[in-house]
Amino acid sequence: MSKDMVTRWPVNMNKPLQKPTILNIETVARSRLFSVEQVSLAFSNGEQRVYERMRPSEREAVMIVPIIDDHLILIREYAVGTESYELGFSKGLIDPGENIYEAANRELKEEVGFGANQLTFLKKLTMAPSYFSSKMNILVAEDLYPETLQGDEPEPLIQERWPLAHMMDLLEDPDFSEARNVSALFLVREWLKMHGRL
Amino acid sequence: MSKDMVTRWPVNMNKPLQKPTILNIETVARSRLFSVEQVSLAFSNGEQRVYERMRPSEREAVMIVPIIDDHLILIREYAVGTESYELGFSKGLIDPGENIYEAANRELKEEVGFGANQLTFLKKLTMAPSYFSSKMNILVAEDLYPETLQGDEPEPLIQERWPLAHMMDLLEDPDFSEARNVSALFLVREWLKMHGRL
Repeated sequence: MSKDMVTRWPVNMNKPLQKPTILNIETVARSRLFSVEQVSLAFSNGEQRVYERMRPSEREAVMIVPIIDDHLILIREYAVGTESYELGFSKGLIDPGENIYEAANRELKEEVGFGANQLTFLKKLTMAPSYFSSKMNILVAEDLYPETLQGDEPEPLIQERWPLAHMMDLLEDPDFSEARNVSALFLVREWLKMHGRL
Repeated sequence: MSKDMVTRWPVNMNKPLQKPTILNIETVARSRLFSVEQVSLAFSNGEQRVYERMRPSEREAVMIVPIIDDHLILIREYAVGTESYELGFSKGLIDPGENIYEAANRELKEEVGFGANQLTFLKKLTMAPSYFSSKMNILVAEDLYPETLQGDEPEPLIQERWPLAHMMDLLEDPDFSEARNVSALFLVREWLKMHGRL
């Protein structure tokens, strides 16, 4: 089948969706990092609901998959949400004024000790959109050069290098289970395959 | 290279990681759904930090990928975090006393109108473990039979069926971008390929 014949699914489009009306938004809890909002909604069928969500933020994040000498570089970092050391790719919030490539390069220098001459955007991922607006941009970093920026980590991040030829073994590591990291791993494999590199 | 020769990576193991000591945990904000904790930590190198996280919960969730007539069934549902209709797989919290299979079957009946005679566990995913402890169990549902349970949705969920042969086209849909859904799509494809069905 030629590319032109690929049909977009589903074939039968549903009628356009009418979003619920937001009747009221109230901040019901606030800490240094988090603001919880209570949102009152009227759905188009007349049903009303009160939902809670984190206050939406325009600030997006980046996750960087660095490739050097046919290896991926990952870091092992303490996560207080699960009280465990987790294996994953370098990531961080985009600072005001930065684009995703600048943010990715800065985070890479802070957390991995490399800059990248080549950064490729792969996909923007959301996370539990019923509660959060956060968006994570996945990038591949290549053509790396040593450069370090001071980060705010309490202890040195431990680096691990995984050969591209065995990258999917990461899924067997119980410390590699975060959904955006798992997505990034698959997305990078697709990208490498598409370019004939795997 | 034979399977026996596959080496676990990385080859050079780092010294065992010593977790930071939790000095204090205090609830600093609370709403109906969310409890924010402030956690004071002393890292093994003496550095101290105060982090915020959501209060950990033992309650896990399930995400169900139903397959019928060589199609995936997805639902389109309003997400107040992003104020948009999102395309994804059926999901929900595990109720007290349920195992993951019972929870998956109940959610499937509530949200999709089917029960499943065959449920297969694929992987447990975490989400932003620096802040959350939540765990999502990904399952495939097959050998479906019509059965409906009353859910708590404010409006009927819109179902869409995607042919397995075109399942990866979902990644081109801007409404399909949630990290656990993207991971589930790739994991199901791996599983189908492993069983010679793709």
